[in-house]
Amino acid sequence: MLSIIAEALDWLGIVVFATTGALVASRKEMDIVGFALLATATGIGGGTLRDLVLGLAPVFWVRQPEYLLVCVGVACLTFFTAHLPQSRYRILLWLDAIGMAVFAVAGTQIALAAGANEFIAIAMGVATATFGGIIRDVLGGETPIILSREIYVTAALLGATLQVAFSELGFAETTASMVGFAGAFALRAAAMRYGWSLPRYKSRPGRT
Amino acid sequence: MLSIIAEALDWLGIVVFATTGALVASRKEMDIVGFALLATATGIGGGTLRDLVLGLAPVFWVRQPEYLLVCVGVACLTFFTAHLPQSRYRILLWLDAIGMAVFAVAGTQIALAAGANEFIAIAMGVATATFGGIIRDVLGGETPIILSREIYVTAALLGATLQVAFSELGFAETTASMVGFAGAFALRAAAMRYGWSLPRYKSRPGRT
Amino acid sequence: MLSIIAEALDWLGIVVFATTGALVASRKEMDIVGFALLATATGIGGGTLRDLVLGLAPVFWVRQPEYLLVCVGVACLTFFTAHLPQSRYRILLWLDAIGMAVFAVAGTQIALAAGANEFIAIAMGVATATFGGIIRDVLGGETPIILSREIYVTAALLGATLQVAFSELGFAETTASMVGFAGAFALRAAAMRYGWSLPRYKSRPGRT
Repeated sequence: MLSIIAEALDWLGIVVFATTGALVASRKEMDIVGFALLATATGIGGGTLRDLVLGLAPVFWVRQPEYLLVCVGVACLTFFTAHLPQSRYRILLWLDAIGMAVFAVAGTQIALAAGANEFIAIAMGVATATFGGIIRDVLGGETPIILSREIYVTAALLGATLQVAFSELGFAETTASMVGFAGAFALRAAAMRYGWSLPRYKSRPGRT
Repeated sequence: MLSIIAEALDWLGIVVFATTGALVASRKEMDIVGFALLATATGIGGGTLRDLVLGLAPVFWVRQPEYLLVCVGVACLTFFTAHLPQSRYRILLWLDAIGMAVFAVAGTQIALAAGANEFIAIAMGVATATFGGIIRDVLGGETPIILSREIYVTAALLGATLQVAFSELGFAETTASMVGFAGAFALRAAAMRYGWSLPRYKSRPGRT
Repeated sequence: MLSIIAEALDWLGIVVFATTGALVASRKEMDIVGFALLATATGIGGGTLRDLVLGLAPVFWVRQPEYLLVCVGVACLTFFTAHLPQSRYRILLWLDAIGMAVFAVAGTQIALAAGANEFIAIAMGVATATFGGIIRDVLGGETPIILSREIYVTAALLGATLQVAFSELGFAETTASMVGFAGAFALRAAAMRYGWSLPRYKSRPGRT
């Protein structure tokens, strides 16, 4: 049983991720079918991995074709409007941040609903939040956003962890989702805005 | 229940796609085990994705090991004969066109048989037709054929759509399959021969 | 029913593969969350593909969260100690060889236990042994180790084949596993040490 909230979040995440896929297609000057393919793969990629791994097959978009229709619709809309904003890349980054935060929460929630334990649910949240973007960047030949110097996967991890923590503490599902989304999005937004990053591994000379 | 036609198409598609995988291996001067790996991944990749997403697990080649044997056989044959034709790359492109057209139809048919709705069936046809080639090009380090300027994914979309339309109109499965295959292959062939492409997204200066 | 041996092998393989993932993360100077992501994807990637294809969903690490915890632990440990050895790349190659040999055997064994026929079991062994490394190299932007000139996939094939052969000949599972592991590791070790490779396809001028 997926709650209405989980489904609403899924929709929001799919629409914004599909838009980022279409924006990458526009950067590569693809045709409209290429837009549709990249928007769809990005929009449903994370949820497809989540459903397969949890054993929820056929996956969600086979059960509800509307998801595909929306991705295709988003692709067509983007094909004809992508020239309007001044900086498509900035929009892509911000939409990706929303999608990441939404899927971190939605993936965690669906995994919990499917009976997964807390740790697995957090992992599924992170996987759902990052996999669509990985597919998009691989298919579109972009530098993978998960390798970006600014905090990215960590924000998904924060969102999923908050979601689980607030659920465990007895808060309503809506509250837990909102806190998780806010945490993930705020951290990613701050990281983009202020260039935040975690300390990185530094190569040092080996033992001598 | 997969019909005999669907299975025959699957075989044809697997053999030609496996050959394209082996031809990419020959371009990369791999050893015979590399040929087998690339031929097999290309031949069964699309169908594996289709079965996983539809919830038809274990996937088809686990149920019928003959598929793997044929891919390995094709790889060995190609290893010893790939030097014979004058232009391996042209053959690769044409075999890929056949495989794409076959899988567009076979994927659609299997999805319909598994109870998927029409729109999902078309999406599965396109996914099955393109995924094997994506795997081949990623593993072999080639430029992804789905990003080729000439019509590619659109041809798979046409084939899958014709297949569904003719089935819905009450034509026999064989007829629908033949029309779908012919449509997909003819469009891709014409695109390769005459350089057809859809209008592509053109970068324009942003709004000011 | 997975035997205790199969599970013990799985653990060993996951730990060494997770370490190779973390070592690639160190070569790319990622942060600690990047280490965890790459270690986990590498450690559980092969087994995830195996379980999905065999229809064993939810996959093994959803059923047993300890696997994820260990991958994350390995990532943290590597983050703080990767500078100690003199040549991280040599260690990466040797750990990868151990992981490959272990998973060739473990993958074969689990497929046999799931009722797969001998040929499928060998293919699953090879797929399990190579897929984690493929994911690691794609996500980390390294040259795929399966394309290395020295024997790699062939060693996994040898290990899986020995495992099946000795099982069929009536030897105890432990014996078959040890022989399979020894064969795969020895062949890969010799290939690395002495530069062994199979004859590769040579481009020749086409027929005239």
